[in-house]
Amino acid sequence: MYCCIKTILTINSGGLMNRHLIIIGGVAAGTKAAAKARREDKNLKITIYTNEEYISYSACGIPYYIENLVVSSDSLLIKSIKSFEEIDDVRIKTLHSVEKIDTEAKKVIVKNMQTNEIFEDEYSKILVATGASPIVPNIPNVHAENVFTVRNINDAIKIKQAAAKSKRAAIIGSGYIGIEMIESLNSLNIKTVLIEAQHQIFPMLDEDVALEVQKYLEVEKNTEIVLNDSAVDFEVNNKGKVVRVLTKKGKTFEVDLVILAVGVVPNTCLAKDSGIELGFKNAIKVNSRMETSLKDIYAAGDCAETYNIATKSPDWIPLGSTANKQGRVAAINICGGNEEFRGVLGTAITKVFDFNIALTGISEKVANKLGIAYITSTTKSRDKASYMPDSKRIIIKVLAEKNTEKIIGAQIIGKGDVAKRIDVIATAITAGMTIDEFGDIDLSYAPPFSMAIDPILIAVEALKKS
Amino acid sequence: MYCCIKTILTINSGGLMNRHLIIIGGVAAGTKAAAKARREDKNLKITIYTNEEYISYSACGIPYYIENLVVSSDSLLIKSIKSFEEIDDVRIKTLHSVEKIDTEAKKVIVKNMQTNEIFEDEYSKILVATGASPIVPNIPNVHAENVFTVRNINDAIKIKQAAAKSKRAAIIGSGYIGIEMIESLNSLNIKTVLIEAQHQIFPMLDEDVALEVQKYLEVEKNTEIVLNDSAVDFEVNNKGKVVRVLTKKGKTFEVDLVILAVGVVPNTCLAKDSGIELGFKNAIKVNSRMETSLKDIYAAGDCAETYNIATKSPDWIPLGSTANKQGRVAAINICGGNEEFRGVLGTAITKVFDFNIALTGISEKVANKLGIAYITSTTKSRDKASYMPDSKRIIIKVLAEKNTEKIIGAQIIGKGDVAKRIDVIATAITAGMTIDEFGDIDLSYAPPFSMAIDPILIAVEALKKS
Repeated sequence: MYCCIKTILTINSGGLMNRHLIIIGGVAAGTKAAAKARREDKNLKITIYTNEEYISYSACGIPYYIENLVVSSDSLLIKSIKSFEEIDDVRIKTLHSVEKIDTEAKKVIVKNMQTNEIFEDEYSKILVATGASPIVPNIPNVHAENVFTVRNINDAIKIKQAAAKSKRAAIIGSGYIGIEMIESLNSLNIKTVLIEAQHQIFPMLDEDVALEVQKYLEVEKNTEIVLNDSAVDFEVNNKGKVVRVLTKKGKTFEVDLVILAVGVVPNTCLAKDSGIELGFKNAIKVNSRMETSLKDIYAAGDCAETYNIATKSPDWIPLGSTANKQGRVAAINICGGNEEFRGVLGTAITKVFDFNIALTGISEKVANKLGIAYITSTTKSRDKASYMPDSKRIIIKVLAEKNTEKIIGAQIIGKGDVAKRIDVIATAITAGMTIDEFGDIDLSYAPPFSMAIDPILIAVEALKKS
Repeated sequence: MYCCIKTILTINSGGLMNRHLIIIGGVAAGTKAAAKARREDKNLKITIYTNEEYISYSACGIPYYIENLVVSSDSLLIKSIKSFEEIDDVRIKTLHSVEKIDTEAKKVIVKNMQTNEIFEDEYSKILVATGASPIVPNIPNVHAENVFTVRNINDAIKIKQAAAKSKRAAIIGSGYIGIEMIESLNSLNIKTVLIEAQHQIFPMLDEDVALEVQKYLEVEKNTEIVLNDSAVDFEVNNKGKVVRVLTKKGKTFEVDLVILAVGVVPNTCLAKDSGIELGFKNAIKVNSRMETSLKDIYAAGDCAETYNIATKSPDWIPLGSTANKQGRVAAINICGGNEEFRGVLGTAITKVFDFNIALTGISEKVANKLGIAYITSTTKSRDKASYMPDSKRIIIKVLAEKNTEKIIGAQIIGKGDVAKRIDVIATAITAGMTIDEFGDIDLSYAPPFSMAIDPILIAVEALKKS
């Protein structure tokens, strides 16, 4: 994790480089930018400094590794250090922490975390791609060895080891990670309780939609869900292991394992200390070229702000897809190109067991918060011809702006195919399509894939009656 | 099948009706229109005349019924006659052939095909939804009892019965039906040869894309495919059953069963005889309100022309999804509303075994024919994170107009998820999105559903380099 430190020790000059891109952080945005920058500029010197042991891994794949769907943690490594160094000529410095950016001298101060050596390195451009870190709530014994956040490869390996010896677990928080971990732990025969402080699970969804997910988990998957309550104490045994979770309302759960999944915060101490302006939710403020407030310093990925096309305002929605796109745009601009990242809709998808959850754009909750007048419909359909043996149910909630009738958001859940449908709606929102224009889309139909009139066409049509 | 007859016999007057909608044809467009018209107008008298035995069936589901995926032919019946009559108050007259539309007297002449009784019935509006019929090529013994077209429920039942006693089959033609029947027959352990007159299978695809489908069928599914050749003789045994297919180039195939799948033609004799103007490929000429050239007469479904949004010209692409939409638009306008059907992109999807084939908009072939200057890219990707155990390959070919850089078409094939991707591109084409605008779409990502940057974003991005 990136921390704020103030003391600078002796430095070891890297020598003046005319063109040296230093990338701070080596997961999605950082490695994507390195690869893209190399393709854009064959002669640019590129260095990635990361305080982690691994680079270029898929954090999103961790729940599937824990579940043994992905057999080896190596599979989560998208591109090897060797490949970066030998093929792309990118210097990779793992377990190296950038302690400060000296924007006047155009140097970074770096600490080798294994030797404690401190040195400096000159840059012409910097990409800050320091990511985000899980929030660790202030609960007694939260740092016990069997309490885990789910963020990096080491977390994944440690959870998998602990899970092998566990029979009962608590998951604190019910966002993407919390929901996905229900499946992971259940598949390892670990009885799991989900504890959520809000009055609904999966707070990105509207309450009515979240209730359907909750019903599925409780009724079909026998998952214990505790709402409106939060963990206030982790009781440990004499070996320092958490054995019991106590909640505010006095509930007690015996556990062998605790997963913390209460959200993430952007890693922006280094940026802040270096005088880079922060924006929405303390993420690094960037423009559409991924430029920060300081010259020659760019930011991308989970540490950076984004623009929400649906709400037309700055936002911070840390997701792997966005990190990759922002890294790409930053690299092009760093190399002298001119590319814009126009923003996100907060489109996201996940699954828990055989139940899919997808959303894009503005929920009813957000529309109310922003004072947007909207119309909404909720329709239940089959995802394909009902006579097909694998036809499954989906629920589609869609919103349009009341005055313009432009589609502004959707939530689609169920056992059927939601991925294609959320992506069609994301495309329509991006294009500014109205209810009427949407009705004209010629979507694909064959019995194994859809109904003759696709459920999303029916859902949007239903807005006319709302 | 609807035929052209000239002789009108005695008629039995139905009495003057102020508002009586007569729908001729009872499959997709006809029954959709009936149901919609009833919702729009509670007091309208509605009658469906169909020369078939069944109404409201899914013709698209027939291959899956033959394959035993859909267990009963009843499952293909979407809405029963009883439900139409008792709940929707729609009169259903099966095995009734409308012989003539008398537009001056505003009457139809109808023949009861079981009793041969001929009567007339007055209308205020007519919807012609007479569908399309399979082309039956002029080959000796083409009407033998073991030679089948694949169009209606009776075809389905007869093919299934014959298939149970068959070991070898020939499929003539490799469009949707031909391709789907390979799977159906193979699943019943019938060794099948596919005979296609053109130099590629699945002529809606570009040759390079079709070649990938062909390779899959030949290599992985051991399907015998004969190109550039056609059946010229069906040899029969002494019971009149076809036992051998002979081709133009002198090939011979022993068969127990022959499937004719060389395309369909619109059923427009009745319309033509009644003075209704025909258009593209002899389909009934309609405007966007589904009005024909004659007052109070509408047409919808496989018998009607459509407008191709991608080529910006009239077209005829008979598909179930379009039939449903046209039926709906016709019904709204018949009931005094004002709805338009703005056209199609020819979006279509099918599968053969575990290989999916989808297309939308303009192929390279069509672009060349129409003289459209285009750029194109073909990319191969995984459909989801490569470390997921069910990650599969897809091939994406996409086209954009050279000058405007607007996306105009795509073909996506492979074992992975192509449905969501073709629908996103269809949406983008409908919205008139350019390559740049497409790159901004925030598509959903999670390892079980996609790659961090969706393959279609990569495919469209690749157009920039082409």
